[in-house]
Amino acid sequence: MSIYKDRIKKLQESMQRLGVDYYLIPLADYHNSEYFDSYYNIIKYMSGFRGSNAALVITRDKAYMWTDGRYFIQAEMQIKRSGIILMKQGMPDTPTVVEFLSDKMCEDDVLAFDGRLVSVEGYERYNNAIKRGRICDADLISDLWENRGEPVRNNVWILSEEYAGESVEQKLLRIRGDENYNKADALIVTDLCDIAWALNMRGSDISHMPVFYSYLIITKRNVILYADMSCLTDTLSYLEENGVTVKDYEEIYKDLSDKQFYNSYGIYKTLIDDSTCNTAIFTMLNENSEVLKSAGVIRTMKCIKNRTEIKNIKNAHIKDGIAMCKFLYFLDKAVNEGCDTDILVGEIDDIIGYRGNGEKKYYTELSLVEILHRLRSEQEGFIEESFDTISAWAEHGAIVHYEPTPKTNATIGRDNFLLVDSGGHYLEGTTDITRTILIGDASLKMVREYTMVLKSNIALARAVFYDGVGGKSLDMLARNEMWQRGYDYMHGTGHGVGYLLSVHEGPNNISIRNRRDVPIRPGMVTTDEPGIYLRDEYGIRLENELLCKVLTTNEYGKSYNFECLTLAPFQLECIDSNYLTVEEKDYLNSYHKKVYKLISPHLTKDEADWLKEATKEI
Amino acid sequence: MSIYKDRIKKLQESMQRLGVDYYLIPLADYHNSEYFDSYYNIIKYMSGFRGSNAALVITRDKAYMWTDGRYFIQAEMQIKRSGIILMKQGMPDTPTVVEFLSDKMCEDDVLAFDGRLVSVEGYERYNNAIKRGRICDADLISDLWENRGEPVRNNVWILSEEYAGESVEQKLLRIRGDENYNKADALIVTDLCDIAWALNMRGSDISHMPVFYSYLIITKRNVILYADMSCLTDTLSYLEENGVTVKDYEEIYKDLSDKQFYNSYGIYKTLIDDSTCNTAIFTMLNENSEVLKSAGVIRTMKCIKNRTEIKNIKNAHIKDGIAMCKFLYFLDKAVNEGCDTDILVGEIDDIIGYRGNGEKKYYTELSLVEILHRLRSEQEGFIEESFDTISAWAEHGAIVHYEPTPKTNATIGRDNFLLVDSGGHYLEGTTDITRTILIGDASLKMVREYTMVLKSNIALARAVFYDGVGGKSLDMLARNEMWQRGYDYMHGTGHGVGYLLSVHEGPNNISIRNRRDVPIRPGMVTTDEPGIYLRDEYGIRLENELLCKVLTTNEYGKSYNFECLTLAPFQLECIDSNYLTVEEKDYLNSYHKKVYKLISPHLTKDEADWLKEATKEI
Repeated sequence: MSIYKDRIKKLQESMQRLGVDYYLIPLADYHNSEYFDSYYNIIKYMSGFRGSNAALVITRDKAYMWTDGRYFIQAEMQIKRSGIILMKQGMPDTPTVVEFLSDKMCEDDVLAFDGRLVSVEGYERYNNAIKRGRICDADLISDLWENRGEPVRNNVWILSEEYAGESVEQKLLRIRGDENYNKADALIVTDLCDIAWALNMRGSDISHMPVFYSYLIITKRNVILYADMSCLTDTLSYLEENGVTVKDYEEIYKDLSDKQFYNSYGIYKTLIDDSTCNTAIFTMLNENSEVLKSAGVIRTMKCIKNRTEIKNIKNAHIKDGIAMCKFLYFLDKAVNEGCDTDILVGEIDDIIGYRGNGEKKYYTELSLVEILHRLRSEQEGFIEESFDTISAWAEHGAIVHYEPTPKTNATIGRDNFLLVDSGGHYLEGTTDITRTILIGDASLKMVREYTMVLKSNIALARAVFYDGVGGKSLDMLARNEMWQRGYDYMHGTGHGVGYLLSVHEGPNNISIRNRRDVPIRPGMVTTDEPGIYLRDEYGIRLENELLCKVLTTNEYGKSYNFECLTLAPFQLECIDSNYLTVEEKDYLNSYHKKVYKLISPHLTKDEADWLKEATKEI
Repeated sequence: MSIYKDRIKKLQESMQRLGVDYYLIPLADYHNSEYFDSYYNIIKYMSGFRGSNAALVITRDKAYMWTDGRYFIQAEMQIKRSGIILMKQGMPDTPTVVEFLSDKMCEDDVLAFDGRLVSVEGYERYNNAIKRGRICDADLISDLWENRGEPVRNNVWILSEEYAGESVEQKLLRIRGDENYNKADALIVTDLCDIAWALNMRGSDISHMPVFYSYLIITKRNVILYADMSCLTDTLSYLEENGVTVKDYEEIYKDLSDKQFYNSYGIYKTLIDDSTCNTAIFTMLNENSEVLKSAGVIRTMKCIKNRTEIKNIKNAHIKDGIAMCKFLYFLDKAVNEGCDTDILVGEIDDIIGYRGNGEKKYYTELSLVEILHRLRSEQEGFIEESFDTISAWAEHGAIVHYEPTPKTNATIGRDNFLLVDSGGHYLEGTTDITRTILIGDASLKMVREYTMVLKSNIALARAVFYDGVGGKSLDMLARNEMWQRGYDYMHGTGHGVGYLLSVHEGPNNISIRNRRDVPIRPGMVTTDEPGIYLRDEYGIRLENELLCKVLTTNEYGKSYNFECLTLAPFQLECIDSNYLTVEEKDYLNSYHKKVYKLISPHLTKDEADWLKEATKEI
């Protein structure tokens, strides 16, 4: 029996004992964060699945796992031995978790989950849909999971105004002036990025997300931060200056269950963000105050980047562009043509392999991840990758969120595509870029498909739209290029990007299936990343980041367009200009001109010559 | 003092007497119908405005009228003498009626309106938004409006299954099998089109909408129709065969206020369509039952046309296409070239004018309306226009919903556009088509703009999309062609079309600003009518109807596309093929080929020769 089958069986035994018929395990920490360390990853422990979106439902005798199109292929591989049934989210005929449960559950059935892992929004979705049976809060995992370890807690640091562009004082003023905020006496901030943004503080508790575990309560007069006290040492005087009271992370559960706490702070109405506030906290708030919900007071401020942030982000993209252009140069010269290059200060022999008699160099997906990492690390202000680099050779590229591991690590061959999706956190902002690189020669089909993905990318990048238009509409521009040709991709076209925060930041989003369609407005940074994924062949994805800007105001209203922030060439060899319209060619040429202009001054002569050729007019 | 100022003053006096601070007058009958006879048009009586969308708010000393972009220019002209302030809906800085009231109203203020004229949905919007003051139901108009007359009530007739494609028995079975229906004991049908559809009956109480004033209650066992008894004579045995009990129209208010009525029919939970059920009925239902709301049980069935309806609709479009092609031929030969034609059986001298010594013929907007009417009337099964024909010469075309009247009736000149938006009700279905016709020569700008509108039309017509995609996304395809070039149009790109019912039928809709975005699905018929409107110059609108069909099912899901139903050429002279992509040219050529193939057999030789030339390949 596999370890996963064994763990599921143990859980089923404990369900049996406690009279639980359905046990739901979301992939979440207590803040509904997108990333979190493995302490919180119960799904990986129970199933072996390593993707970033999943839900497990354990019944008395079966187990089901839901995940989305990015992970269908990966999930099939990873949960094969667990006996878990894969439920492909978004496919016709696949019920959602909620539909599944509300359909299956009978009158006396009990559904349980750990309330800390489920947001209020999630809880209410279950509560509204489930007509029969009842729901209860139970943690059945802690007792079962041996050697779980402790969650990561690291030192917290201050992001100075030079980078943040707005003081904490000013941010608190704006929050307290917010219309939704003013319907309540206190805002309970549960989203870790929101807290980091509001306090101009960062941490490293979560890899790829420079935040720290904490809760924040903002009343009309007080600000209380709940965080690991031992990690706040460097920031105590700063917090005091800003009038922030500090308490230990766990203390919030004690405070919120104490009526006296509410009275002493004059809290009668509380405002929560129901998408990140967990059910355990909500229950306490609900017993002691009137709870109001809002789409996120801070989220709607944070997504509009201020002038300083925008200036910095542009610099971050120059740095990221330098690293990317050096990387693309390296791929072309060293990997494609087999020449020696000197892109990196120091040797790279430790990360590349040799084979055969003539000791021919070869490269693997992981060695390229390391080379790209070293190139980014050479840039001033670089902190870490903003997510695990996807370096996917050939058929691995068809696995949307493939991450190479020593086990899957493929050697780069020829006549196929290498898909590299990566990004960095810099003091000056966060980046996210995907390029798909041809090694060797391309078939006509490959060129046609690369060009199609490029057309899709350009369609969104060239969008002109009026105030009020959301990502649900904008996505149609990118999709149309695919749908006209019988292709599609099972993911959104774009997501918001945080400023030295999560690389996936709401509420802005470009997705045809948006449930909450938010207007795309000036100051928002959103990715543009259409792709195609051909199982057992390759994947092609081309991703730039777009800054929304005011274009003009005319009789029809205020119109906006995008400025492309990302700076790295698309591969001309893979583009058939016969498939491009005049406007698309103009866009590509002027984009490439800009890349050359901004990046070439930072390159060696060889690299700059290469970039000149790589960005030449078509 | 103008008569409108006088009427407003009288209303303000009556408000003063009754302690009403704000009086709201919606443009509606008691069923929230789109069209209705002038008996219900209080706005026209109070303001002189003749558009189809408006709301009046009378305060103690002022009057405000809201209308949408289609009517800005027209409204400015028509309410000039009333002293009413025009509020341009959808413009930045214009509050909605609800925002306006909730902002203005103070603690003790009273807002009143006639509950029969406001849908439950509308009422709740006001009720939720208005924080201060209170709302009451009062009809202040009936006493004030002298010589109002009686509402129109005409004979009701049966639409046989040959045209309806589904029996009443089968429809009732489907309704009673509906998931939402089954949450209640009775469905209260208030939408006149829904009633006509459910009973396969039609009337002529409302011009352009072949329905009859009625209410319908469908319980698990009974069907009760409330309608003018004197109009049902021809249908009584049919109704009896179908198990429908008949009562007088007004009786529903008596029944619904009588507890005994509910008991005798076993009605404890009622289901309403909150967008058409009026507040007066809702109040009664609410006092005597538990009221559930649904997005419209019948509406979601009615919008998916059955096979018979689709077959018939295609025939209706051939008939409409014959009339339109003859009309376009006439415009080209008679109006443009000044030749004689014999398109109409009988003489047309009674409707055209002569001027000058040589008795040169001239044409006006209204004479062209009449000629087009006569051409449609020659088609078998034609009943009436599906809306008032818009025949708008030159700058009149910039008034989106301009209707020529004897007062505005312009003479057709040269070197400008004539915009004709028209449609017919046939036994075989309802049509809606717009063509913009150049008379004389076009400037380069005119050609560029006509081509742009055509590109916009084709972009939507060529759409390929997956199940779940709504009109909010699809609209982006049409808008993009405009927005890229600095143009826009202040109306939706498309609306659903009924089958011998309202020419504007929900829930399907192609609009970037959709509040309720409904997936576009096979069997739905939706218009595709982008346009541009250049004040004091001209308007260009090109409208076809599109039938949504299944394209294929592949790994990404079920995909759909459109079949164009409308059959009339676009004007080749106004199209610069340099602006068209290969795909757009292919679409246009194959569309024109189809038009020629289906319409030419029904034309005279001269007309067919003309159509051959008008549909030649580019």
